[in-house]
Amino acid sequence: MHAAADNASASLPHVVILGGGFGGMAAARRLDGASVRVTLLDRRNHHLFQPLLYQVATASLAAPSIAAPLRQILRRQRNLGVLLDEVTGIDLAAHRVQCAHGSLDYDFLVVATGATHAYFGHDEWERYAPGLKTLDDAFLIRRRVLLAFEHAERETDPARRQAWLNFVVVGGGSTGVELAGTLIELARHTLPREFRHSDPRRASVRLIEAGPRLLPAFDPTLSDKARGQLERLGVEVHTGVAVTGIDADGVKLGERRLPARTVLWAAGVAASPVGRLLGAALDRAGRVQVLPDLSLPGHPEVFVIGDLAGVVQANGKPVPGVAPAAKQMGRHVGAMIRACLQGSDERPPFRYRDDGSLATIGRMAAVAQFGKLKLSGFSAWSVWLLAHIYFLIGFRNRLVVMLDWAWAYWTHQRHARIVSGGDIPDDSPEPPPGSP
Amino acid sequence: MHAAADNASASLPHVVILGGGFGGMAAARRLDGASVRVTLLDRRNHHLFQPLLYQVATASLAAPSIAAPLRQILRRQRNLGVLLDEVTGIDLAAHRVQCAHGSLDYDFLVVATGATHAYFGHDEWERYAPGLKTLDDAFLIRRRVLLAFEHAERETDPARRQAWLNFVVVGGGSTGVELAGTLIELARHTLPREFRHSDPRRASVRLIEAGPRLLPAFDPTLSDKARGQLERLGVEVHTGVAVTGIDADGVKLGERRLPARTVLWAAGVAASPVGRLLGAALDRAGRVQVLPDLSLPGHPEVFVIGDLAGVVQANGKPVPGVAPAAKQMGRHVGAMIRACLQGSDERPPFRYRDDGSLATIGRMAAVAQFGKLKLSGFSAWSVWLLAHIYFLIGFRNRLVVMLDWAWAYWTHQRHARIVSGGDIPDDSPEPPPGSP
Repeated sequence: MHAAADNASASLPHVVILGGGFGGMAAARRLDGASVRVTLLDRRNHHLFQPLLYQVATASLAAPSIAAPLRQILRRQRNLGVLLDEVTGIDLAAHRVQCAHGSLDYDFLVVATGATHAYFGHDEWERYAPGLKTLDDAFLIRRRVLLAFEHAERETDPARRQAWLNFVVVGGGSTGVELAGTLIELARHTLPREFRHSDPRRASVRLIEAGPRLLPAFDPTLSDKARGQLERLGVEVHTGVAVTGIDADGVKLGERRLPARTVLWAAGVAASPVGRLLGAALDRAGRVQVLPDLSLPGHPEVFVIGDLAGVVQANGKPVPGVAPAAKQMGRHVGAMIRACLQGSDERPPFRYRDDGSLATIGRMAAVAQFGKLKLSGFSAWSVWLLAHIYFLIGFRNRLVVMLDWAWAYWTHQRHARIVSGGDIPDDSPEPPPGSP
Repeated sequence: MHAAADNASASLPHVVILGGGFGGMAAARRLDGASVRVTLLDRRNHHLFQPLLYQVATASLAAPSIAAPLRQILRRQRNLGVLLDEVTGIDLAAHRVQCAHGSLDYDFLVVATGATHAYFGHDEWERYAPGLKTLDDAFLIRRRVLLAFEHAERETDPARRQAWLNFVVVGGGSTGVELAGTLIELARHTLPREFRHSDPRRASVRLIEAGPRLLPAFDPTLSDKARGQLERLGVEVHTGVAVTGIDADGVKLGERRLPARTVLWAAGVAASPVGRLLGAALDRAGRVQVLPDLSLPGHPEVFVIGDLAGVVQANGKPVPGVAPAAKQMGRHVGAMIRACLQGSDERPPFRYRDDGSLATIGRMAAVAQFGKLKLSGFSAWSVWLLAHIYFLIGFRNRLVVMLDWAWAYWTHQRHARIVSGGDIPDDSPEPPPGSP
């Protein structure tokens, strides 16, 4: 049994939250001051502001600017303890979570372990096309991108040099659009003066989307605007083409081959494997099908929230896998647990409130949608800037991020261009993240 | 042949500098504007401000605050190109450097590959007691230190818990003193409110020095002051005791055993193995014995500078392995190459100018020595603060570092407390840095 279960207030009901992302964090905070013991369990020590993770991957921000220790964020919540461990099993009958280093008995369980990137049955692509979900993913991508320019500088054969300057981003959702826009800026504006033999401006950035348009979550007019803004920056956009193969030399689109030594994957997500431990019905993307109140069928004391939850709205559409939805679900469940502790039997259904969507493309280029209001270009970019600074955790981070962005804006420099983790740049792609 | 050798100005003499640390960088800059082609070769893409590396290892600063890409720092120097590669051989007769990915012919060669940490014939200790020379070393130490507190929080057995809260730093030079002082502050001031089951204030930090006093490079009165300041902060200082064994459970001092799960190594350095490629006489620490002008005996076109150079001053003492000495040697050699290109035969001997020494211990605690002037406590700390901010590379870094320090000073918080690189905290020590 974990030490977390045997403290002085052991008689209070125990709420166990699995996952310290936006959902788990919101649930935890909503329980501040309630007569419960809360244990927040994560296998990482930090909360990650994922919407800005692409900026770490493209050397614009340092990792500590978008990640903060869970303990530090939650240190003032006296009824809460953070535990660093990994879930290995859930015994719904015994109300017990089994972890790698102990177990936890719960009265309420909130499962908020999120999603990971998925390769649609082509796991062999991961080796060549890393995805972007964790800080380690971001470091791997940063390393690959920066070393590609170094390889080009060293290469004397023109075709091989160009292959190092070719970048392909697979997936036209917000992450793909943001990565492509930042990569082309890196190549055209940050790096050119620094190389003597190869010209980073000759880099090509191609964005491949299998569906008919970029940013499918946005209004079609904004998809067109986004495409136009990306193309003006220099990105080559391909929609309606499916990737059929990825290897060390590039990407296959049916009969066509795009030679590229650097391929980034932003095409698909699958729910966290922790969902399978619940033994409940999963949808096609691995999400747990929950009741309208977000509880597990047959287990009113177990809730699933965030990207792991498969929830259908009244209009028949699924709740999107975005940070605001996860936060709203966390608050909903936190409030319901509080009410339940006060004797209430009510189980209000979760209702998703769409506060709008934002995707940034580059300097002064973005799209935004708030209900009927649609913005693009500079106005959308300004809203994006303010919103992201506002939602960043911790006053210090906001200040440093603002400073970093102001600096990058005026100088075109990016300060986080550090390659670490093995000194000798090798020609072969590194093993996928997570390998030893 | 590297592309670096076949550009338009190929007829100019070619200066190859191996290593982008303080020495190599100073030599490169001294050659700005000279009628030469300069190639600066490093196996890492960044210059590292090593005097502050312990702050990355103890979660006070983010890596990009103390490291900047060599290309970015040197981008305005038109006669210089940066090459990311690793030296594998030096052919002194053919004036050629062999690298992993090509070769370079030189007219002048400056070898500035520095030093690494050494275990005095006990390489098996590295696994348990990582040293601190590179960013990867700092990330490994940060990970070990932060996870030790997580292990203590999970552990229910009191003796095993205390072993996770015991830290031993081996080596009482500036790095050891700085690490010990920062660790005790982390335990006593940053972390306490954040843990629920273990109390970080129960952490013990022990500093072991085999010699008779701390900071042997300083005046004995300052060694005493440093010891007093460390002890007031809570560090247990042991001098005159040699470590005879290190394993996963702690440190052996002869018959005595200090149980500790975290041991840090700051006890010894050895010159870079590149020195051996020169086929010249090495001293006991592996430094290349050079002539008074820093050139290799019999090879007036080859220079060795920085921590790799074994130079004896007029007073019979060796030039210390510190950043100012490396910078001075770099400038000396750069100036001599310039003079030589203008037909001068003069080979002035290198003279080390001691600008003083500084070592920080903690909040408002430091020692400083400038010739006869000796400072300790708040005054030394103020000088240390100003000097380090002044010498940091790049305006932006200085600003961010100042902000970080101000933040840490007022809040006791440290913002870089991010653990990445493998999710599941394991009981066994990680492989040493550099392993796959």
